[in-house]
Amino acid sequence: MKTYRLGLHVGLKEGVLDPAGQATLQVLHQMEFAATEVRIGKWIQVVIEAEDEVRALAIGDEMGRRLLANPVMEAFDVTVTPL
Amino acid sequence: MKTYRLGLHVGLKEGVLDPAGQATLQVLHQMEFAATEVRIGKWIQVVIEAEDEVRALAIGDEMGRRLLANPVMEAFDVTVTPL
Repeated sequence: MKTYRLGLHVGLKEGVLDPAGQATLQVLHQMEFAATEVRIGKWIQVVIEAEDEVRALAIGDEMGRRLLANPVMEAFDVTVTPL
Repeated sequence: MKTYRLGLHVGLKEGVLDPAGQATLQVLHQMEFAATEVRIGKWIQVVIEAEDEVRALAIGDEMGRRLLANPVMEAFDVTVTPL
């Protein structure tokens, strides 16, 4: 077994309203930043043991589907880094 | 001016307790995932106009320092993608 760090980006799907992002955009404008859109999601890092990188990616995908993302309104992607 | 998407990973610094990560780790164990550590941060995407990629990166860094990360307990990194 090897050790891997999974990185999951979890964010609201396209078309789902992001009130926290809109609030942040408003503050960026008050600070005179020329931003046009802000989306706020989660960045979840999980350290796991797995046989190889392919298996680690499959575990990350299963974690996303079963626990870390809400399948109704969130999408996610997984990256794998060997430790 | 060109359009860029900034991606900021904002997370608790090493050594700062992450209660949400610990709660998630406990649930992963109950689901029989072999995880040893979970850290939960934010993934913030901002669309901006900038002269070039170097300037876009500098704007993202300034947003992180001044608004999007808490400098006392969070660290961040910035990536730039042309749109």
